[in-house]
Amino acid sequence: VTVADLTERELIARVVGRLPAPPEWVVVGIGDDAAVVEPARNQLDVFTVDASVEGVHFDRRLSPPDAIGHRALAVNLSDLAATGAAPRVALLSLALPADLPTDDLDGIVDGLTTLARRSGIQIVGGNITRSSGPIVIDVTAVGSVKRRSILRRSGARAGDAVYLTGTIGGARAGLQCLQDLGTTTLDLSSCIERYRFPQARMRVGHLLGRNRAASACMDLSDGLADGLRQVSEASGVGMTIEMEALPIETAARAWFERAGVDPVTEALAGGDDYELLFTVRPSHRGRLRAVELHGGVPLTRIGVCTPEPGVRLSRGGVVSPMDETLPREFRHFR
Amino acid sequence: VTVADLTERELIARVVGRLPAPPEWVVVGIGDDAAVVEPARNQLDVFTVDASVEGVHFDRRLSPPDAIGHRALAVNLSDLAATGAAPRVALLSLALPADLPTDDLDGIVDGLTTLARRSGIQIVGGNITRSSGPIVIDVTAVGSVKRRSILRRSGARAGDAVYLTGTIGGARAGLQCLQDLGTTTLDLSSCIERYRFPQARMRVGHLLGRNRAASACMDLSDGLADGLRQVSEASGVGMTIEMEALPIETAARAWFERAGVDPVTEALAGGDDYELLFTVRPSHRGRLRAVELHGGVPLTRIGVCTPEPGVRLSRGGVVSPMDETLPREFRHFR
Repeated sequence: VTVADLTERELIARVVGRLPAPPEWVVVGIGDDAAVVEPARNQLDVFTVDASVEGVHFDRRLSPPDAIGHRALAVNLSDLAATGAAPRVALLSLALPADLPTDDLDGIVDGLTTLARRSGIQIVGGNITRSSGPIVIDVTAVGSVKRRSILRRSGARAGDAVYLTGTIGGARAGLQCLQDLGTTTLDLSSCIERYRFPQARMRVGHLLGRNRAASACMDLSDGLADGLRQVSEASGVGMTIEMEALPIETAARAWFERAGVDPVTEALAGGDDYELLFTVRPSHRGRLRAVELHGGVPLTRIGVCTPEPGVRLSRGGVVSPMDETLPREFRHFR
Repeated sequence: VTVADLTERELIARVVGRLPAPPEWVVVGIGDDAAVVEPARNQLDVFTVDASVEGVHFDRRLSPPDAIGHRALAVNLSDLAATGAAPRVALLSLALPADLPTDDLDGIVDGLTTLARRSGIQIVGGNITRSSGPIVIDVTAVGSVKRRSILRRSGARAGDAVYLTGTIGGARAGLQCLQDLGTTTLDLSSCIERYRFPQARMRVGHLLGRNRAASACMDLSDGLADGLRQVSEASGVGMTIEMEALPIETAARAWFERAGVDPVTEALAGGDDYELLFTVRPSHRGRLRAVELHGGVPLTRIGVCTPEPGVRLSRGGVVSPMDETLPREFRHFR
């Protein structure tokens, strides 16, 4: 059975049947022309939209349906986290090829709704349509944030320390392992899980905003090199990053070394880790303590902001501009 | 030059360069991980998302780029209108084939932003990605509405009058004319314009909500027959609709008659008119006066809600169930 066997209304009913009942603050839910929702008291609305396109962001041969659905929401939760926002509601727009098995549709929706339930975001509306092309999943996520807690990319100043949550390189190693037709004796299961089911750093982002611990923040959807460039440009500062300090995932490092490629370069270039990159004023270091205690993920200091513009990498005592250090194919992303 | 010649960042810059500067209540606009917006005071948030997929909702050979962009936003504005909401912000997600000329992208964005400016909705975020498939334009629109002004599909009661804004059948005739390879001596330009540049009934919807004039409301994206069925089912009433009262667009009626098809059937089945279908309590008829004066579009009474379930069509004094009257191919839509 494929989606071609069902009417649009039957498809909608199939998705809606897999959603939990809406809470009281959803005044009008799915089934009307639009959803009506009470805004969070004394907070601002936060909006983000991100697309997951088959063949660009995922491959049906490498990711099971629930991972595809999980990822489509996770990338949006990560954007909310980077703003310091708490998740509130989401809208889901699906463009589906006629030959998509309904079992796969169910799996995609289950992956998405499982993460929605776990992260406390309510799906209040959506759209389903056929397409002659690949699966396109557009998720719009809405969050709420107090004005004083908003995190932006643009607040870093010279002297601020640069931090990363968690580890990097894992998603890239996991994807490479899935794409690799040969076999490996290395255990890449943590990296594969990481690639398939990215975890947005919701709690850290929320705490960083609430404690006003971070001067700037963004999420690493397109890799660390891209993130460093974006935050430094938006803030009008430079950065010097210590390559030896990078928290590269252990299994990923082993994978890259076995493949004969430089783990640091791979970790800088690799996207899909969805960690947070943030900066902290020297006088606000104490505010990080609560984030370290309750954020649920380690924080690593990887460098410092400088008055001189540009991102520089320090490695074995040698400092060089990032753009000259990275191989050409890694300098411009997507 | 096609979109394949530009990086994602250049594509974003190209779109952002065509947007007006954001107002003060947009606290964080395009360029950060998410947009931050002040909610409208003492109002509820209204959310809707709708997709425009090439080959399903539009054909590049029949609609110029600015019409494609216009339509992608208009269908969402129409959903806001049907809820009684005032437009506030929108997010735009584009999946683009590599061979799309950048001139066409500019045209799509211009059509969309022209309508955005005219309707007072602010584009605060979005996403651009490549796709191996057709153009997919997902627009999420956010509006605001007072709790007492919310319009739903479910409020109609037996005895309520059934109304339509404007005229129907025009978009269908316009599309048929564009698809027709032959020539016609009829002037279908108004219908073609109607198909290409649908006008959401924002003002009427807002007034119907504010005056509490309508007991139920929805927009006719999928045609009048579908709308009648939806409102009657959601409200738990039946309806008797007067076929002679239907406000069929004059040029469309001539087109259908020339083609030897029944104008009433075509007007019932034809989608894309984006008029509002609404019901009014007998005691609230006076509240329609302000809507008639300031809504900018004629209102036509087309029937009445009944205690007996089901939609019935009255024609020449003969009343019969709609599902038996409509040809089979018109009974289930999309």
